[in-house]
Amino acid sequence: MTKRNEKLRLGAFMRPVSIHTGAWRYPGAFPDGNFNFSHYKRYAQTLERGLFDAMFLADSLAMLRMPPNALRRSATVTSFDPMTLLPALAPLTERLGLIATASTSYNDPYHVARKFASLDHISGGRAGWNLVTSANPNEAPNFGQTSLLDHDERYVRAREFFDVVTGLWDSWADDALMRDVEDGIYFDPAKVRAIDHQGKYFSVKGPLNIARPPQGWPVIVQAGASDAGRQIAAETAEMVFCAHSNLPKAQAYYADLKGRTEKCGRSPDSVKVLPGAFVVVGDTAEEALAKHARLDSLVHPESGLASLQVLLGGFDLLTVDLDGPLPEIPETNASRGGLGNIVDLARTTGMTVRQLAQRAGGSYGSLEMIGTPAMIVDQMEQWFEERGCDGFNIMFPFVPGGIDDFVEMVVPELQRRGLFRTAYEGRTLRENMGLERPANRRFQ
Amino acid sequence: MTKRNEKLRLGAFMRPVSIHTGAWRYPGAFPDGNFNFSHYKRYAQTLERGLFDAMFLADSLAMLRMPPNALRRSATVTSFDPMTLLPALAPLTERLGLIATASTSYNDPYHVARKFASLDHISGGRAGWNLVTSANPNEAPNFGQTSLLDHDERYVRAREFFDVVTGLWDSWADDALMRDVEDGIYFDPAKVRAIDHQGKYFSVKGPLNIARPPQGWPVIVQAGASDAGRQIAAETAEMVFCAHSNLPKAQAYYADLKGRTEKCGRSPDSVKVLPGAFVVVGDTAEEALAKHARLDSLVHPESGLASLQVLLGGFDLLTVDLDGPLPEIPETNASRGGLGNIVDLARTTGMTVRQLAQRAGGSYGSLEMIGTPAMIVDQMEQWFEERGCDGFNIMFPFVPGGIDDFVEMVVPELQRRGLFRTAYEGRTLRENMGLERPANRRFQ
Repeated sequence: MTKRNEKLRLGAFMRPVSIHTGAWRYPGAFPDGNFNFSHYKRYAQTLERGLFDAMFLADSLAMLRMPPNALRRSATVTSFDPMTLLPALAPLTERLGLIATASTSYNDPYHVARKFASLDHISGGRAGWNLVTSANPNEAPNFGQTSLLDHDERYVRAREFFDVVTGLWDSWADDALMRDVEDGIYFDPAKVRAIDHQGKYFSVKGPLNIARPPQGWPVIVQAGASDAGRQIAAETAEMVFCAHSNLPKAQAYYADLKGRTEKCGRSPDSVKVLPGAFVVVGDTAEEALAKHARLDSLVHPESGLASLQVLLGGFDLLTVDLDGPLPEIPETNASRGGLGNIVDLARTTGMTVRQLAQRAGGSYGSLEMIGTPAMIVDQMEQWFEERGCDGFNIMFPFVPGGIDDFVEMVVPELQRRGLFRTAYEGRTLRENMGLERPANRRFQ
Repeated sequence: MTKRNEKLRLGAFMRPVSIHTGAWRYPGAFPDGNFNFSHYKRYAQTLERGLFDAMFLADSLAMLRMPPNALRRSATVTSFDPMTLLPALAPLTERLGLIATASTSYNDPYHVARKFASLDHISGGRAGWNLVTSANPNEAPNFGQTSLLDHDERYVRAREFFDVVTGLWDSWADDALMRDVEDGIYFDPAKVRAIDHQGKYFSVKGPLNIARPPQGWPVIVQAGASDAGRQIAAETAEMVFCAHSNLPKAQAYYADLKGRTEKCGRSPDSVKVLPGAFVVVGDTAEEALAKHARLDSLVHPESGLASLQVLLGGFDLLTVDLDGPLPEIPETNASRGGLGNIVDLARTTGMTVRQLAQRAGGSYGSLEMIGTPAMIVDQMEQWFEERGCDGFNIMFPFVPGGIDDFVEMVVPELQRRGLFRTAYEGRTLRENMGLERPANRRFQ
């Protein structure tokens, strides 16, 4: 295979700021790292110093479904709404992309279109929307509903939601604003039109009450792993966040998604695939391994088992032998993304339930990269060059140290090998990610 | 009457940044003053220099209902979502209160509770929620609905919405977070409880997934003028934004609202009444009048008539004699707040429809204060001392000049007379407004 011409992309997976349930207890870490705005300012500015493409905020519209004994050990119980946090970081940064999750299950498309358009204007074209379908069964009762939609039906709704939101962004021509002071004409009404959407789930007249975003559309991000999830990603996504614990699986996913994208009439380059990577870096391999072991030792068994149960779609582990192998896990209506990885890990390594629980409460079954900067970049380079990904969504082991280490140690090594930018290419997230600005489908 | 002990409160009515439809055309004004984030940064920082209690953002979830010929002259057609704009201003300011409008008609209480709690945490206790019922008939079709709820029923829903949101804020005890690094306990699950709300309009389980706001509750703001609106304000509001064109009407409203508040078992001081005031200041009275005349001359008749029609609840002016008096206006299901003032103005002054239209497209029928700083402060002092208000929500004639003039000319005169603070009293909006922090109703 020939060397790839493009650069590798880096996202920062920042909610929770560390996915590791022991992170807040790590020596020197911020115990309030997940919930103190001044810390977020530091993270964002460090990421920008490290030339990251974007900060990525996952989200949940309820507490995690865990027994109180486990939940009380979790730093995710209190968290900022992503679309309140990201605008606050916008004026403190200049180039960093700002990607927030917004569920298509419990939102109105008009609000989502308007908020992301507002963030895109306020940040000068740095917004991204991670379009998710809600899988946490605790969310529905916070929104007057008793149960989740069926898995595939959630994607039908998501696709219609996407059509409405992008339709609203296109309800203004790019050149609708005139601001002719002399004649007193602020905009051209012929260049702003209702969308009159009538569909299965939504009825939305429009137009939006905000001009078309600087990026045309904020960057569309998705994390679908199931068949329905991959298909909507192929049709609509420009950045995909995924989870693979080994390269062959990553390559298969990558080839599948790029192939589907091409079948939808889109260039395979128009979607960037970024698996999550949990990175622990040290001056020596031993130091990195010691950090990792120290960190994992801070995962309480109550917490690890609860995380494992969440990863297994709510499968009850109460009667399971902790020192035996993982039993068969049936499919559920909840998210199918994480399930594969942790089950694979169990089958391929023979790890016991107890060991799997510690891993679940640690890196949550993600790809782990542990070692010196050279070792980590070797692995990244292989995944990138061998078409396992277009970059990574980095998960930090603890904060702020994990972010500082990555930016000070790993980024320079990536740059030295020519794999990563040495300066931002542009001003907008699209420009930096090498993504085209979408043409307006309603005004040519 | 004895002199009042307390200080006068100042809010800044900032959406649109000037309500005057000619503002964006005024010489030296920002034509993009309503839609350029860097300008908002300047406004907010100037208001903070002027020791304003808060910036207040009105909102609408649709374009104004106007014919294209009028709409094209309006700078409000494109506007930021308030809850995206205010977080962006939070890190650029330190003491200024940040009040956003969120409709109880087209939102979920869980989202509203979470977003305002997030803003309150991010801003260090400076958030306020302007709870409105939606009256713009263009909004419903953007949210899958064909018509507005009946006026009084909107308030039934609003009251239940308020109960759910404040219940969610109280779903965390103030001392629930522990962050015991040694034992690995992040919070006490006994201090976080579901609310299990089941009502006419909402079913919300909770708890909220964010800790109780620093202010307990963000400050509750309302603008109700009708009987139902006054009643919910008396029951729940801590700041009321109202509109009166003369002092006797303001005094009657003030006495009524304070009386109702007392009947609800609340101290009359626990709600601050701030009428809107459109202020044009000059070094001389002549200069101020000339500014005002120049500004009003920039209101196009198309725009003025459309504004008047909006103020009159959609009443069709097409067949009306523009140089005759205002005909009888029937009540509608839309907002009843503005109607009284403009009709009063018509009846008491004998202004023609054409003249009323220019006023509507200018200060929108608001109280106008035009003159030197001393003249303006004379009027403010009289309204304040004679119990017509507890302060004012200032509407600026154009930006940035109108804000700069107010802060540099009017504020020093208010201070000289001992009517206004010379430094912020506290860190939170409640501390600065002299409002108590609400006790948690679910955890004593």
